Amino acid sequence: MSTDIDPHQPADEGHREDDDGWGNSHAARMAPGFSGLEAREYRPGSRPGAGYVRRVRDPKAEFRYVDEGLLEATPEADAARGALGKLLGGIKRVLIGRPVASEQESQERTGKLKGLAIFASDNISSSAYATEEIMRVLVLAGVGALALTMPLTLAIIVILAIVVISYRQVIFAYPNGGGSYVVAFQNLGTLPGLVAAASLLTDYVLTVAVSVSAGVEAITSAFPSAFEFRVVISVVLIALMTTVNLRGIRESGNVFTVPTYVYVVAMLGMLGYGFVRFFTTGLPEYHAPPDWLVQHGAGGALTLLLVLRAFASGSVALTGTEAVSNGVPAFKRPEVPNAQIVLVAMGSLFAAIFFGISFLSGHIGIVPDPSEVETVNSQLSRVLVGDGWFFYLIQFSTAVLLILAANTAFNGFPRLASILARDKFLPHQFEFRGDRLAFSTGIIALSLVSILLVIAFGGSVTALIPLYTIGVFVAFTLSQIGLVRHWFDLRQERNWQIRAGVNGLGAVATGIVAIVVAVSKFLLGAWIVLLLIPLLVGMMLAIGRHYNRVKGELEGDIPVTPAAIKHTIIVPVADLNRIAVQTLAYARSISPNVTALHIAQDEESARAFREKWLAWGDKVPLVTIESPYRSVVGPLLRYVDNIDRQDKDDTVTVILPEYVTAHWWEQLLHNQTALRIKAALLFRPGTVVTSVPYHAARHEGHQPAGVGEAK
Amino acid sequence: MSTDIDPHQPADEGHREDDDGWGNSHAARMAPGFSGLEAREYRPGSRPGAGYVRRVRDPKAEFRYVDEGLLEATPEADAARGALGKLLGGIKRVLIGRPVASEQESQERTGKLKGLAIFASDNISSSAYATEEIMRVLVLAGVGALALTMPLTLAIIVILAIVVISYRQVIFAYPNGGGSYVVAFQNLGTLPGLVAAASLLTDYVLTVAVSVSAGVEAITSAFPSAFEFRVVISVVLIALMTTVNLRGIRESGNVFTVPTYVYVVAMLGMLGYGFVRFFTTGLPEYHAPPDWLVQHGAGGALTLLLVLRAFASGSVALTGTEAVSNGVPAFKRPEVPNAQIVLVAMGSLFAAIFFGISFLSGHIGIVPDPSEVETVNSQLSRVLVGDGWFFYLIQFSTAVLLILAANTAFNGFPRLASILARDKFLPHQFEFRGDRLAFSTGIIALSLVSILLVIAFGGSVTALIPLYTIGVFVAFTLSQIGLVRHWFDLRQERNWQIRAGVNGLGAVATGIVAIVVAVSKFLLGAWIVLLLIPLLVGMMLAIGRHYNRVKGELEGDIPVTPAAIKHTIIVPVADLNRIAVQTLAYARSISPNVTALHIAQDEESARAFREKWLAWGDKVPLVTIESPYRSVVGPLLRYVDNIDRQDKDDTVTVILPEYVTAHWWEQLLHNQTALRIKAALLFRPGTVVTSVPYHAARHEGHQPAGVGEAK
Repeated sequence: MSTDIDPHQPADEGHREDDDGWGNSHAARMAPGFSGLEAREYRPGSRPGAGYVRRVRDPKAEFRYVDEGLLEATPEADAARGALGKLLGGIKRVLIGRPVASEQESQERTGKLKGLAIFASDNISSSAYATEEIMRVLVLAGVGALALTMPLTLAIIVILAIVVISYRQVIFAYPNGGGSYVVAFQNLGTLPGLVAAASLLTDYVLTVAVSVSAGVEAITSAFPSAFEFRVVISVVLIALMTTVNLRGIRESGNVFTVPTYVYVVAMLGMLGYGFVRFFTTGLPEYHAPPDWLVQHGAGGALTLLLVLRAFASGSVALTGTEAVSNGVPAFKRPEVPNAQIVLVAMGSLFAAIFFGISFLSGHIGIVPDPSEVETVNSQLSRVLVGDGWFFYLIQFSTAVLLILAANTAFNGFPRLASILARDKFLPHQFEFRGDRLAFSTGIIALSLVSILLVIAFGGSVTALIPLYTIGVFVAFTLSQIGLVRHWFDLRQERNWQIRAGVNGLGAVATGIVAIVVAVSKFLLGAWIVLLLIPLLVGMMLAIGRHYNRVKGELEGDIPVTPAAIKHTIIVPVADLNRIAVQTLAYARSISPNVTALHIAQDEESARAFREKWLAWGDKVPLVTIESPYRSVVGPLLRYVDNIDRQDKDDTVTVILPEYVTAHWWEQLLHNQTALRIKAALLFRPGTVVTSVPYHAARHEGHQPAGVGEAK
Repeated sequence: MSTDIDPHQPADEGHREDDDGWGNSHAARMAPGFSGLEAREYRPGSRPGAGYVRRVRDPKAEFRYVDEGLLEATPEADAARGALGKLLGGIKRVLIGRPVASEQESQERTGKLKGLAIFASDNISSSAYATEEIMRVLVLAGVGALALTMPLTLAIIVILAIVVISYRQVIFAYPNGGGSYVVAFQNLGTLPGLVAAASLLTDYVLTVAVSVSAGVEAITSAFPSAFEFRVVISVVLIALMTTVNLRGIRESGNVFTVPTYVYVVAMLGMLGYGFVRFFTTGLPEYHAPPDWLVQHGAGGALTLLLVLRAFASGSVALTGTEAVSNGVPAFKRPEVPNAQIVLVAMGSLFAAIFFGISFLSGHIGIVPDPSEVETVNSQLSRVLVGDGWFFYLIQFSTAVLLILAANTAFNGFPRLASILARDKFLPHQFEFRGDRLAFSTGIIALSLVSILLVIAFGGSVTALIPLYTIGVFVAFTLSQIGLVRHWFDLRQERNWQIRAGVNGLGAVATGIVAIVVAVSKFLLGAWIVLLLIPLLVGMMLAIGRHYNRVKGELEGDIPVTPAAIKHTIIVPVADLNRIAVQTLAYARSISPNVTALHIAQDEESARAFREKWLAWGDKVPLVTIESPYRSVVGPLLRYVDNIDRQDKDDTVTVILPEYVTAHWWEQLLHNQTALRIKAALLFRPGTVVTSVPYHAARHEGHQPAGVGEAK
């Protein structure tokens, strides 16, 4: 009988008692001291697992042996191959630098001075436009209404103080990074967490758009001729910032330290000089251009809504406060005190500058420029220090700081997105780190969306402002409520009432601001954000549900064993040539149950093909389909359907011959049909698709052996 | 020993004497009267070849049994599946109609009347602008130079007569369609053939662009307010024409018959009326607007070059003559006399109209409109018949005819492209016929390129004209030379000298025109075509060489047999879940030599994964690679390289698990890494890539069995 057994015949039924269906013998696996790998080395020359690892010939040192079955890839393994790959790799290296290994991550930490520049620049830079945005609303009720600028400034500084104190407690309670999402999610549940997350994501995007637009406005205040190019300049700046951030946090910190301190020192110096003048010789005289006054006109009524809108506009001053508490793990040890010091320093510096600008602008009587070309700060500097180098220093450092303030968002957005991805509320890609340990997907996503926003709003800060700040205050409020709950849960600890009280006050204050902003700016654009946040929350919930359903589906017992798989293989052949025969041989080496399928346009060519087939030796059964309507994909799919209906338990594999050309352009001349078949089979449940390549000869002389290579 | 034999072990060495390496026994194959298919039915339930065909359960009647191993697909097999497929299929049906079976082709023939409309409309429609283009050049030497219009018209009519007589002989000699390419290729060789082909392809594209632009000019002559939309109108018209042509020749013939005859009858009527007036009461008076005369000015010198340019411009009159000889097989039987009659009728009708327009315009003293808004023909009609309904009938039929004249190119281009594809000088796709038997690829290519051309040249006939006609005359000349050679080869036949003489005269005449056109219009744009033709020839030669090399590579003996294939299988696994295990089981069912490959970001997670693997039962050897730079594709490719270097004779198969989601948008959340691996492996020689799908559950209740389906 033994000669009747086909050597390729797989055993579908009745495998031996001691077989687990995977071809592994129990005896071998049970033997103590036996490596378990030897048992699987069925024939000489096979090298699975550690057996291979020790014996591998690796002249290029692409892998390092670590342990049984464990290799470590060296940078060699990542090196680009091929001319195009090397070119692209080279460009990438120039733009974002050499790859950084994961274990180098802990070194990527920041001290207090650098930390202030990185995490506080967003908040401090708001002082460049906070006063102006208040004035722009008030002036709608006439120039006289500008007198309310100072009281509103003070109100906002009080809120800021409350927020800073509240957030000192956040840092204390969440030393691993207490973003509003984490705090709300852990203390209040999924939905509040996601609302906070959606609010923050929206706000990060707006931070980039608003900061860059404001920075460009500072430039155009000094150089009005650049005004008409402001959108293009903004887009280029965002692109540059994206590149810097893809290089990683350490270098971006270096880039940002200098301008932050130049701005702070220059502003404090100028404002100090102004106060000295105020208390001694008196402030210099200023007369707003008469046509500005004409354009502002008598103004409408000074309604409560208008005052609230002015307050809401000024509350942009609070944006960016969250950045420090989000970034606690990025600080050098001890992280918590360092972060707290930076937080308080940030609040104090901001408050001082904001107060000074509002106070001096009010006393000098500065009026906002109706055409938006010159900023209030620029006018103030011009009046105080004249048109000299110091004026340009202030304008320039303001511009640079504002542009770099967007960097806070480039830190916060990808970090938050990665946490959301880890929690399965965003696609996996947001969790992966690029060559330089930065969350590349998040950085690129932020960059693209904010560029769209700048273009859509024509790079105007005043147009963007109504969308801004709602997100921040929604997130603030949820995070403070979450913290109240947190302290309540820890109510056996000392002073929990005081801590809960502080955060409760914070929640009330920021909650009121959130409502004021939403109501007073609803029609101006806030509705966009109020619509967007629930949409984002819905999307994140859907993604979360999807990933969870998939996880559930993929878990649990798997009844499939190799022995249980019965193959049915279909090989579409267009012609009987080397590539077809190679593919058929490959198919037959898997299972004897192979059918070649030829689709002909008419009966004549169908019969001619069969003749050719029989002449070749009819080594594999052939089915020819005449397709009178000349389509290939339709009849092929229907044939597979029929095969599948006949024998439901079989696994159908379609094996496609694929000709791979030596040059990419030649590829356009081949495989169009194979591509269409693959696309169609993708949506056919349960069909395995295999591509057997046949590579065109590049050089006649040297040809490697094996299937898939020209001989 | 028998229990030591693994059931999955393929025989790599020493297969039996009577085995051909394909698992077919010689004995069975040799047995007379034995079907040869039974021998391959290794186990019950397998159904390759005819055995399957007879037993297939095909409740939907998708296939019809024809003969052993031969099925015919019914329209059912082509029916669209799925909601999206049905929607797209429905739209396609509405636009281009139900599919037409290949065997219905012979019915798609055309009679003389319809044939004249289809093949002659290009040539006859040239009369709408031929006179004007001559005048536009002459007027550069002042209005007085317009006196040369008539002599140039007569010269062109003489050339036309020569070409028509020459092409009567082409039809006689090549009743299967004697395009210039075929004639030049068969008689003069590959290079002249391809030059003729490239010239014609270029010219077909220009025919569409020029005819549609001229048609739109006829519309804007009647409705000047439409002038600014001429490019948009042209593009829409080309798109409409594309759709009509995708529906197939029969219907397009119906669309085109009426306007051609309306134009011919209306023009002959109007010109006849003009001649009656000329010989009786005298022609009506006409005075060109004084500002036109001012704009034309005194003009430059009337050089020989200018006269030649005017002649060259007028020679557009000859374009389209080739269409009839190309389309001989599309005529009803007897094809040759029918085509010859149509050719002569076309020449006569065109000559009469052209002569009439030039003669009457000259005697009335019409001057071309410098702003290009009103055509010469429009002025002539206005003067002769006034602003009434007949004027609008002429303008409208001119417009429709010109637009439909482009249809000649929609016939000629795809047909020529399909012949070139058959001869391997263009990609295969140009040879395939769409649902309605039209060469869809060629139609769509022509449509896209001509739309680009119309946009690039702003829809101006005068701007496009210098590019036109060179191609035609190059092709004419080559075809006539080829025919002289053809008659010489048949020199034992009667009258061969006369035939050769006629075509020789044709070659000389068209050759001179080709040179005149190229020289006189070189700087105006002819250089573009003179550059394009060699580029196209080079491309076609490269494609031809490529296909031939591939054919050579794929022919000849194939040493691969299933028994000679040694499998090495690598299964990248991201997690140990159902989809991974299913894929591993599939891999193990092919060969015992399977290695699972897991790429981890750090050593900790690598070790954790190995623990999980051992807990599962370590059924397949696992290699884990720690990738400190977080890349997946690089280390995977390098691992495959190492495996391949170790054992050069093995066939490496990478089997990828692929999760197929229930809804398309969910797909964005999965398989990004699998996609990147597939793209990278495509360029790795000799790696077989298999996708094992795991389809998400759509409905909890019903689940089909087998690999690749959720359970």
